[in-house]
Amino acid sequence: MKNAVIIVAGGAGKRMGYTVPKQFIIINDRPIILHTIDKFIEFDPGIEIIVVLAESYYETWQKLVTGSGFDFPVTIAAGGETRFHSVKSGLEQLKGDFLVGIHDSVRPFVTLPTIQLVFSTAELFGCAVPCVPLKESVREVHDEGSTPLDRSYIQIVQTPQVFRSDILRKSYETDYRTRFTDDASVVEAAGYPVRLVQGDEYNFKITSPEDLEIARMIINSQKPHLH
Amino acid sequence: MKNAVIIVAGGAGKRMGYTVPKQFIIINDRPIILHTIDKFIEFDPGIEIIVVLAESYYETWQKLVTGSGFDFPVTIAAGGETRFHSVKSGLEQLKGDFLVGIHDSVRPFVTLPTIQLVFSTAELFGCAVPCVPLKESVREVHDEGSTPLDRSYIQIVQTPQVFRSDILRKSYETDYRTRFTDDASVVEAAGYPVRLVQGDEYNFKITSPEDLEIARMIINSQKPHLH
Repeated sequence: MKNAVIIVAGGAGKRMGYTVPKQFIIINDRPIILHTIDKFIEFDPGIEIIVVLAESYYETWQKLVTGSGFDFPVTIAAGGETRFHSVKSGLEQLKGDFLVGIHDSVRPFVTLPTIQLVFSTAELFGCAVPCVPLKESVREVHDEGSTPLDRSYIQIVQTPQVFRSDILRKSYETDYRTRFTDDASVVEAAGYPVRLVQGDEYNFKITSPEDLEIARMIINSQKPHLH
Repeated sequence: MKNAVIIVAGGAGKRMGYTVPKQFIIINDRPIILHTIDKFIEFDPGIEIIVVLAESYYETWQKLVTGSGFDFPVTIAAGGETRFHSVKSGLEQLKGDFLVGIHDSVRPFVTLPTIQLVFSTAELFGCAVPCVPLKESVREVHDEGSTPLDRSYIQIVQTPQVFRSDILRKSYETDYRTRFTDDASVVEAAGYPVRLVQGDEYNFKITSPEDLEIARMIINSQKPHLH
């Protein structure tokens, strides 16, 4: 089956205190979102790529991405109010049967073996979600205080979450519910089983200024990107 | 009240695939455990420091720490079977009234403001535990499959966890229970309320080879340590 990936970059990332959303922050001469997209082109140079962007950032995309000489064919879709709406919008741009990965634009450190594993598992089972064990102690916080949680039962969910396009389309026919925190939860609500596979610890999401600083160190310690 | 810190370095860290436990891995000419201890000396040059080590690593400590010119007075205590036993062993070396921090030897990135905040909160309330919000989606895994968890109720527990020594001594009079996953859970089981304070995201625990690589990048990007 052909591969596609929906790169979700709907967020405006105001909390980072930057003037551009975090996926457009430049590290080693390229916006983070291109470091991310590179991984999928490396996985499959024939992959269909859909980038979901808030419409207010179409111009930023033009300036930073198209303008920088990036010429891989990419379809742009309009971001929605929530991740659910954004993924749905991206999915509408995809015609035909695919294995569809859904990936956060601010996870540039996903590795090739992880991408290969989630796509090949989804080809067999219709769905694959990369997870890593939670390594730190956790507490559940409630109005009356907090209580320890047993972390051995908890897995951190990463992306790319990969699904067969027919499963994804059927699942996204539903209306939005607040408990749709990720793509797997939508597919699961539609009655499909979710299959977990081993993710990798490097594949973190750049959310905070601390994450951004660590991302800079990692990217700058790698060899420069050759255009 | 006087300050003390118990640095917990009981683990042998075999899963890292190194011949020495991870707290003794050298980064920028110093074992990780010294990078960690430095932070507490910077916080309070009069602090009482107790290092809990597996007895089999006393020689490693001599060679890598004492032998490297580190001359801050430190009391060594014998590590036990679990963290509970190690902390209890460290606590037995402490005579008098203190605010006692308990800190993982492999968390060298704790910041001075965090140390100040946990110690000052514990001075007021008897107990303070640094926490950060869980930023990623999580699932609970069980025999029949997995279900999404609401992460907004979940906090990641870090160290140093700080307690008044009288509270800590009374709490550790108990026998070991498997649900003692951290120091706060012991104090809580003894009937004392646990107070959460804001931790910081940099303060991660070096557990995996990926963590170690990120730790190297962070430490090497900082200015060299001046002896």
